[in-house]
Amino acid sequence: MSRPLSVGVAGLGTVGVGVLRLLRDNADVIGARAGRPVAVTAVSARNRTRDRGVALGGLRWFEDPLALAADPAVDVVVEVIGGAEGAARALVEAALSHGKPVVTANKSLIAVHGAELAAAAERHGAALGFEAAVAGGIPVIKTLREGLAGNRIARVAGILNGTCNYILSAMREERREFAEVLAEAQRLGYAEADPTLDIDGIDTAHKLAILAALAFGRPVAFEDVHIEGIRRVSALDIAFAGELGYRIKLLGIARRSDGGIAARVHPAMVPAGAALARVDGVTNAVVAEGDFVGRVVLEGAGAGAGPTASAIVADLIDLARGRLTPVWGAAAAELTPAPSAPMLQHVGCYYLRLMVVDRPGVIADVTAVLRDLGVSLESMLQRGRAPGEAVPVVLVTHETGEAAMRAALARIAALEAVLEEPVLIRIEPG
Amino acid sequence: MSRPLSVGVAGLGTVGVGVLRLLRDNADVIGARAGRPVAVTAVSARNRTRDRGVALGGLRWFEDPLALAADPAVDVVVEVIGGAEGAARALVEAALSHGKPVVTANKSLIAVHGAELAAAAERHGAALGFEAAVAGGIPVIKTLREGLAGNRIARVAGILNGTCNYILSAMREERREFAEVLAEAQRLGYAEADPTLDIDGIDTAHKLAILAALAFGRPVAFEDVHIEGIRRVSALDIAFAGELGYRIKLLGIARRSDGGIAARVHPAMVPAGAALARVDGVTNAVVAEGDFVGRVVLEGAGAGAGPTASAIVADLIDLARGRLTPVWGAAAAELTPAPSAPMLQHVGCYYLRLMVVDRPGVIADVTAVLRDLGVSLESMLQRGRAPGEAVPVVLVTHETGEAAMRAALARIAALEAVLEEPVLIRIEPG
Repeated sequence: MSRPLSVGVAGLGTVGVGVLRLLRDNADVIGARAGRPVAVTAVSARNRTRDRGVALGGLRWFEDPLALAADPAVDVVVEVIGGAEGAARALVEAALSHGKPVVTANKSLIAVHGAELAAAAERHGAALGFEAAVAGGIPVIKTLREGLAGNRIARVAGILNGTCNYILSAMREERREFAEVLAEAQRLGYAEADPTLDIDGIDTAHKLAILAALAFGRPVAFEDVHIEGIRRVSALDIAFAGELGYRIKLLGIARRSDGGIAARVHPAMVPAGAALARVDGVTNAVVAEGDFVGRVVLEGAGAGAGPTASAIVADLIDLARGRLTPVWGAAAAELTPAPSAPMLQHVGCYYLRLMVVDRPGVIADVTAVLRDLGVSLESMLQRGRAPGEAVPVVLVTHETGEAAMRAALARIAALEAVLEEPVLIRIEPG
Repeated sequence: MSRPLSVGVAGLGTVGVGVLRLLRDNADVIGARAGRPVAVTAVSARNRTRDRGVALGGLRWFEDPLALAADPAVDVVVEVIGGAEGAARALVEAALSHGKPVVTANKSLIAVHGAELAAAAERHGAALGFEAAVAGGIPVIKTLREGLAGNRIARVAGILNGTCNYILSAMREERREFAEVLAEAQRLGYAEADPTLDIDGIDTAHKLAILAALAFGRPVAFEDVHIEGIRRVSALDIAFAGELGYRIKLLGIARRSDGGIAARVHPAMVPAGAALARVDGVTNAVVAEGDFVGRVVLEGAGAGAGPTASAIVADLIDLARGRLTPVWGAAAAELTPAPSAPMLQHVGCYYLRLMVVDRPGVIADVTAVLRDLGVSLESMLQRGRAPGEAVPVVLVTHETGEAAMRAALARIAALEAVLEEPVLIRIEPG
């Protein structure tokens, strides 16, 4: 057996410790599959004394991650510090500039700086693995970049954030409101103390930007992703969705069309029988649609120390075996400069829910606005009667352009009988 | 860009033609992802004049596939002739012995002769790709061999035969009997004129043997797979399954335990909410359970020219990029010689359905047999009353050993009041 692959791990949080544990616990199978031992020899973290539940004896310790990257005895750097800037970015740039391969779980870094990092990796001939950055241990990066590489991908969509999916699942199952379920998720450790990145859709957008770049073979373009989170999803809308045969999911969706590549993150109504509708709790799932392969669905745990470590180690085994792939699936010169399609060009069906005063003529006013803007209705649902009081009205449209829909929404919101800001949820095939 | 990868395709049935078409239609994206053009330059088939709907001009034509393998201008041989013996086997052996890489869709060849072929590939330093052999375009081989390579896999299970899943789905949805649905599937082209390989579970067993070898890192052992097909599944049992909250699926299941590796193919009752229960029609799905990654589910089209070509081309792109992996995930010397666990050591829950004469004492006789053999019952279902006539009785057991269950079955079948051969279906977590 050849020389061991010497791994330096920067960051000893739960994921870093998970990598150490996995490489030790499964050293035999990993060595067999990698063709050589894969072992952590150096680590970097600030607090040297904290008990992390894993033996660190015999490992070289660097307080400065850049020193770890510079250590000639380290063959590959595992970056699990996190964050798009600061120490993580500096470390990855430094390692690549030394021609040293990097494996990272850092979705924001890859989504935001992936184009420059790919250029650096190509320039210095160093690999950059990031299977762990999207959907935990589910091999979605490998599937898009290698497994489906013969296909033109038309669409990739997924449930990419376990926190949001847990919250939406619990809201539906327990008929509870967002704020209450979020608080519970925070108590249970499924949501961060500051949940912004998750519930405002930013984490999903990071992952979607990565998937879209791989699926369509173009440089990553995080700044072009349209992002809406789940704060405004209510138990009422989840109940209406159920009545209409849908589930509400926070989806990341990227689609290629003549107008370019549209990438968007927003709550979506998905038919209850669709693959993505049935994915509940913290599970992640990705659907890819290729011209020859058809629809492929991948599902599994999207986060956690074990699944994330599994993805990082898969990248390390690829490196140990010398299985190399350009960061975005093709050399920079071979990527397509396909433009991003703006959200206002989106066409789809919409769910619109209003709270209106229950009195004659209100529906006529609302539907007149829709008619004037060329929005045609598929169905309307009005529940309960309470003359003079607020009642919900649900409208489902046929295919409509986003621009017309937004114009209609503004006019409807301005009607005197419309009491709250209208809720708009896009309908997706799932 | 480097020298093109020159591909020779042996066999011009629907899959071979699919490969030609995919490599032409998507030449731009394939070239970018492969880092060089991938082009068919030679083909082998018997009938030179048949119209296959694809242009064959400019390709070298070999009547003898062995001559194609020997052609020094062919870098890699794609074998889509089929069959575990004969021309396909001779071709693959010949190509590997020339040190020439082979990509094949041939599950029976790999399942039956995979150990020798892996040895030949290793000896001659030639790659052998077979992503297309299992589950069509779904990258299950890559997922087990690379994506989940850091894990110890405890269990892999799947719906691996679209024909059987189509038949069982249609039987349930349309409440029809096996023979009728099979005849229809044959008319529609979902089942072969001779459907034996599919409906008797042999095709599933070939694929399962391959998945088990990859999952557990041991040489393929097709002859140790326990195989039962779906001929005896009836509309009555499908209806009872529904009442009990199950779906009946033909599963291939391989599990590692202290006793060794158990691999079995049989109709199974799967809880209706489980991932595998919801896979209907010709779709395939595979569940893999790893110690760090947890459960990963992959789903997609399991057959057809497009999906199969997609998998073959993924293997070709790996070759073009120089991404190499030993046939069974590790060098022969690194595989575990884990023994196969015999079916008689299986432990699980069972569904047992009898047709008995409706008269006092029959149930007492049946349950006495079960008690005597230590089989404990979870539930019993008796439908309808027809004194003196045949009525169905359903028994569901707690965890029971296969040996005790078979002994009980033999004794129950011999009871005078039991009118038909009892039906036994194993219950699986899905």
